[in-house]
Amino acid sequence: MTLRIGVIGTGMIGQQHVERLHGLVPGATVTAITDHNETLAKEVASQYDGITVHPDGHSVINADDVDAIVVTSWGPTHEEFVLASIAAGKHVFCEKPLATTAEATLRIIEAEVAHGSRLVQVGYMRRYDAAYREMKATIALGVIGAPLVFMSGHRNPDVPAIYTREMAIVDTAVHDFDVARWLLDAEITGIRVIAPRSNRHGLDREGGDDLQDPLLMTVETSTGAIIHVETSVNIRYGYDIRGEVIGEDGTVALADRGLTAVRANGAVSVQVPGDFQARFRSAFDTEFTEWVAQVSSGEPLTGPSSWDGYAATAVCAAGVQALQTGERVGVDLVEKPALYA
Amino acid sequence: MTLRIGVIGTGMIGQQHVERLHGLVPGATVTAITDHNETLAKEVASQYDGITVHPDGHSVINADDVDAIVVTSWGPTHEEFVLASIAAGKHVFCEKPLATTAEATLRIIEAEVAHGSRLVQVGYMRRYDAAYREMKATIALGVIGAPLVFMSGHRNPDVPAIYTREMAIVDTAVHDFDVARWLLDAEITGIRVIAPRSNRHGLDREGGDDLQDPLLMTVETSTGAIIHVETSVNIRYGYDIRGEVIGEDGTVALADRGLTAVRANGAVSVQVPGDFQARFRSAFDTEFTEWVAQVSSGEPLTGPSSWDGYAATAVCAAGVQALQTGERVGVDLVEKPALYA
Amino acid sequence: MTLRIGVIGTGMIGQQHVERLHGLVPGATVTAITDHNETLAKEVASQYDGITVHPDGHSVINADDVDAIVVTSWGPTHEEFVLASIAAGKHVFCEKPLATTAEATLRIIEAEVAHGSRLVQVGYMRRYDAAYREMKATIALGVIGAPLVFMSGHRNPDVPAIYTREMAIVDTAVHDFDVARWLLDAEITGIRVIAPRSNRHGLDREGGDDLQDPLLMTVETSTGAIIHVETSVNIRYGYDIRGEVIGEDGTVALADRGLTAVRANGAVSVQVPGDFQARFRSAFDTEFTEWVAQVSSGEPLTGPSSWDGYAATAVCAAGVQALQTGERVGVDLVEKPALYA
Amino acid sequence: MTLRIGVIGTGMIGQQHVERLHGLVPGATVTAITDHNETLAKEVASQYDGITVHPDGHSVINADDVDAIVVTSWGPTHEEFVLASIAAGKHVFCEKPLATTAEATLRIIEAEVAHGSRLVQVGYMRRYDAAYREMKATIALGVIGAPLVFMSGHRNPDVPAIYTREMAIVDTAVHDFDVARWLLDAEITGIRVIAPRSNRHGLDREGGDDLQDPLLMTVETSTGAIIHVETSVNIRYGYDIRGEVIGEDGTVALADRGLTAVRANGAVSVQVPGDFQARFRSAFDTEFTEWVAQVSSGEPLTGPSSWDGYAATAVCAAGVQALQTGERVGVDLVEKPALYA
Ligand SMILES: [Mg+2]
Ligand SMILES: [Mg+2]
Ligand SMILES: [Mg+2]
Ligand SMILES: [Mg+2]
Repeated sequence: MTLRIGVIGTGMIGQQHVERLHGLVPGATVTAITDHNETLAKEVASQYDGITVHPDGHSVINADDVDAIVVTSWGPTHEEFVLASIAAGKHVFCEKPLATTAEATLRIIEAEVAHGSRLVQVGYMRRYDAAYREMKATIALGVIGAPLVFMSGHRNPDVPAIYTREMAIVDTAVHDFDVARWLLDAEITGIRVIAPRSNRHGLDREGGDDLQDPLLMTVETSTGAIIHVETSVNIRYGYDIRGEVIGEDGTVALADRGLTAVRANGAVSVQVPGDFQARFRSAFDTEFTEWVAQVSSGEPLTGPSSWDGYAATAVCAAGVQALQTGERVGVDLVEKPALYA
Repeated sequence: MTLRIGVIGTGMIGQQHVERLHGLVPGATVTAITDHNETLAKEVASQYDGITVHPDGHSVINADDVDAIVVTSWGPTHEEFVLASIAAGKHVFCEKPLATTAEATLRIIEAEVAHGSRLVQVGYMRRYDAAYREMKATIALGVIGAPLVFMSGHRNPDVPAIYTREMAIVDTAVHDFDVARWLLDAEITGIRVIAPRSNRHGLDREGGDDLQDPLLMTVETSTGAIIHVETSVNIRYGYDIRGEVIGEDGTVALADRGLTAVRANGAVSVQVPGDFQARFRSAFDTEFTEWVAQVSSGEPLTGPSSWDGYAATAVCAAGVQALQTGERVGVDLVEKPALYA
Repeated sequence: MTLRIGVIGTGMIGQQHVERLHGLVPGATVTAITDHNETLAKEVASQYDGITVHPDGHSVINADDVDAIVVTSWGPTHEEFVLASIAAGKHVFCEKPLATTAEATLRIIEAEVAHGSRLVQVGYMRRYDAAYREMKATIALGVIGAPLVFMSGHRNPDVPAIYTREMAIVDTAVHDFDVARWLLDAEITGIRVIAPRSNRHGLDREGGDDLQDPLLMTVETSTGAIIHVETSVNIRYGYDIRGEVIGEDGTVALADRGLTAVRANGAVSVQVPGDFQARFRSAFDTEFTEWVAQVSSGEPLTGPSSWDGYAATAVCAAGVQALQTGERVGVDLVEKPALYA
Repeated sequence: MTLRIGVIGTGMIGQQHVERLHGLVPGATVTAITDHNETLAKEVASQYDGITVHPDGHSVINADDVDAIVVTSWGPTHEEFVLASIAAGKHVFCEKPLATTAEATLRIIEAEVAHGSRLVQVGYMRRYDAAYREMKATIALGVIGAPLVFMSGHRNPDVPAIYTREMAIVDTAVHDFDVARWLLDAEITGIRVIAPRSNRHGLDREGGDDLQDPLLMTVETSTGAIIHVETSVNIRYGYDIRGEVIGEDGTVALADRGLTAVRANGAVSVQVPGDFQARFRSAFDTEFTEWVAQVSSGEPLTGPSSWDGYAATAVCAAGVQALQTGERVGVDLVEKPALYA
């Protein structure tokens, strides 16, 4: 049976997911969409067969021909639509963040626990990237011994004028936090943020405030392993996601991704991805393929949960405070409900 | 509109293509299959919705609910089913070889030319591999100057007992020939085959004849560029496809493909693919995705044509003769019909 | 004219430098040695022509056939012999540390400034390593823009039982501090040390205390650039020195050093150096070759100076305090004498 | 005791070897030189202490203060000076070629065999390159099984106007032939040369004939292993020596040599050596260091012998004939004297 999906929010990422779910992901189709910009929603719908435009998210959630929901609307609306999906007893995939405050994510957890089974998945797609999965498998095989440190580098060629210094934590490093928690099988317990001298490309930006870029973050975890995150969001040369887990006997790192090696002009070179899409397109495909398969079959969800969404949001809040104060800020999570064990 | 596909032959590669076309490729569905082993065909059909088992290939080809045909049956049957598809005016995707003799491929060309437009595509999937495409794009950009030599290495960890020494040319090197013709935009005009001392894993094989493995091939082309092919089909360490185009100002080569780099036990290492599927799965996906899109939209086919199938078969015949005689053997193709210009 | 050198201290590193200076370095010969173990000194001398064994370092320094001194004795004796060399008006190359306290290094600076020209060079050999030099040249060319962060990884396969947790800073990270100051052209102003969970190989050591290993250090500099140092001294897999300078437009990193790539057993691998000697032998050769050439010709010394020795010692003292307290510790240097401008 | 060396021929390579032997190689000094251009010889001598200029090579060979001879004069004079050295009972290091014809090299072998012990070493320095040595050691360890094919690529950025098409064999590929014989422990028995379309940089050369460049050579050996040599002498991008030995279970290849990896402008790149000196300087140093040590100590010579010089010359003669005729040309060596076993 084909899983019929309703998509709330048809901005850039929403459009990509409609295309992906309608065209590529096996066993899925999109039947309903909505957007606060109704004209945009209609334009998107017109490119496919069988998609109905709804007036709002609640209409999508409660439509008879919608089996599961994808929330790709503006972050502040996530809580409302995720809670409504749980109330309707329908699976919901919510792009990050799950909600904008830790309190809101706890309300979602409360509702899901009351429902009694997992309905929520959060869009931390790095867990679906083949390279990160190979890192995790290598650790599990014991090749590098117990992991002690994870060095994570997150580099963007540039960011739009609306990007603020806090977004380096809330929008950018949050992916590193989530994938680190998953790779190390550990909870984050504290964070400190260090700001080196700023990249000139982050200063005197047309239409934007000065950034503190790059940022370095020292992140403590429940196992004693340390996560070190570097964000560089104006580095020009490419979209480059780097990572190395340092263990007791060795390390495992993300390899360079170039498909071909060119020997010209005195050098051998391989290309770096140009943007987020080039780097993670396959991870998004796998993320939805596995989600649709699990939802359709009734198998337990294995993707990022409400708990992961809560932990990420809590760490980001601590990170913002650490950036603003220059101090270490602890992360104290509530007790983990059995549902997420 | 969804393209309804009939698949003739449901052995290993046929089953993979049914799965791919039914589940993954956008805009395609499989409606009809057949196999000389009817029980097998029924088993395959039972795993999907909406697939009818037909008594033979002609029944598939002529079914009303079949828009296009995929031929994955035994090589000697290819000619018959491709000709029948052309007679029915339907698009046909034929796994390599297009036919087992150059004469047979010429009969297909004759029929297709009589039909007046391209209906046939042959399954040389390397042209859809992202790395080869990057090589071709790099050449087109002029980065390495005019291409002068293409070094191609084709390494399999092992081969089954039924694999004969001629298959190193007809089944293995044929992929190198096709991708070389495409990369260099040149026709092959002659071939010589050199047999070094044999790998011990190719000798005294249980149930198989002794192989001459590896083989080295010096292949001449219409532009004067030379193709050098190494086949090593018992090399144990992995499935490793290597290639470097040497130009006037530089070279472009296939890069190693490991996703992660492990530092352990005195070395830094990245993995090599273990088999054909691991290396080319994405190329197969892209091959069918583009074929389905072009067939559905009526755009001109850009994949390997009957002419490419003829050229490959002619080169293989020359290669087998060159292996058996130890001499250079010329390849004389017929004049190329305008349809394939 | 051949530079006649006296070597004080013929332990392991002293013997290597005798061999190097006597046999390999152009324009140099060793004429005098001493060691607190006179038997050892005699054994060393017996392997060469023309080396006299002296009763102590002062006898070496003041010998008529000694033009310049190399101090490779126990650290606590360095100050005495360096000061005596300055008093004798002779050039002196002192292995690190220049002295064991910042106060002692300041006394050396005072004496050298009083002398009026540079006579002292300190053995921070990384500045002579071809790879670090290429990094510095790349930065100078502007390829990566202004440097903002330097990530330095210092990994030893193991350490002897006598190695203590403070030595990870004083003996190990000190090389990272020095090379960072040189690469970034910046003075260190503060340090914080973070201890992740310990590597099991650093615990329950036969004859040694438990180590905190690895250590992560966040080091602030006068330009605002940040240095991040990772020391892992029990990582088993090899002696691996890693480093990446992150700039405004790109990065430059130490490349892997394997001479050959082996494809076997499912992977492509290159070797990692096994120890300190394998990694830095050439740097030591170059260090002495350039020092001998500059001393012999009277050209200004360009190697690490007394000031560099003082700065390194001051940073190490702060680092030890930071390790012991868990707090950030500032580094306040005296005003830099014009001699070291 | 210091080995006193006389150098015959002080052109570019001769000057480099004087510098190397006088200044760098332990236990060696240059005491005598000569050149057909006496002014040049005097200029060279004036840069060092203790070097006497002699009127001709025979005067050098017979000088009382000359223990061993280095021949770096014009190729056609090599035979005369090597024979005179043998007659004087002195060790002689002769840059390649040992002599310009196989007959001449056989006369040297005859004289050396009559002398009764090895006195001659030929300057095939690749055997002293650390990377090739690691390849040979890897083969010896059995990591890749028995070697079956050696792929050797020899790329120069450009060549002077005097370079002729035959020199691609006699001056360039000869290094590949020698190192292949040594790596594979095999004698060359036949050769075929294939000329692809020519690189435009090899045509219409100011002051030079048109070249056939690149050349591909298929070289047969006594073990059945095949050597494939590619020479590209106008490839512009760098001086790039490539090589891969393909064995029964794996391969070992020369790794790229960049010391640093730069991430900039969309790519990760490492440098390729710019010329011969950059690539092989260390090999030359090691070559003379080991030769001087063996000659001084009286240990057996392990470097390339007169036999290796003969074999190389014989293969080159066959290669030139193969190039000129387009046919395979056999190489029939005389029986190997026991001295070279
Ligand atoms: Mg996401
Ligand atoms: Mg195929
Ligand atoms: Mg040192
Ligand atoms: Mg040479």
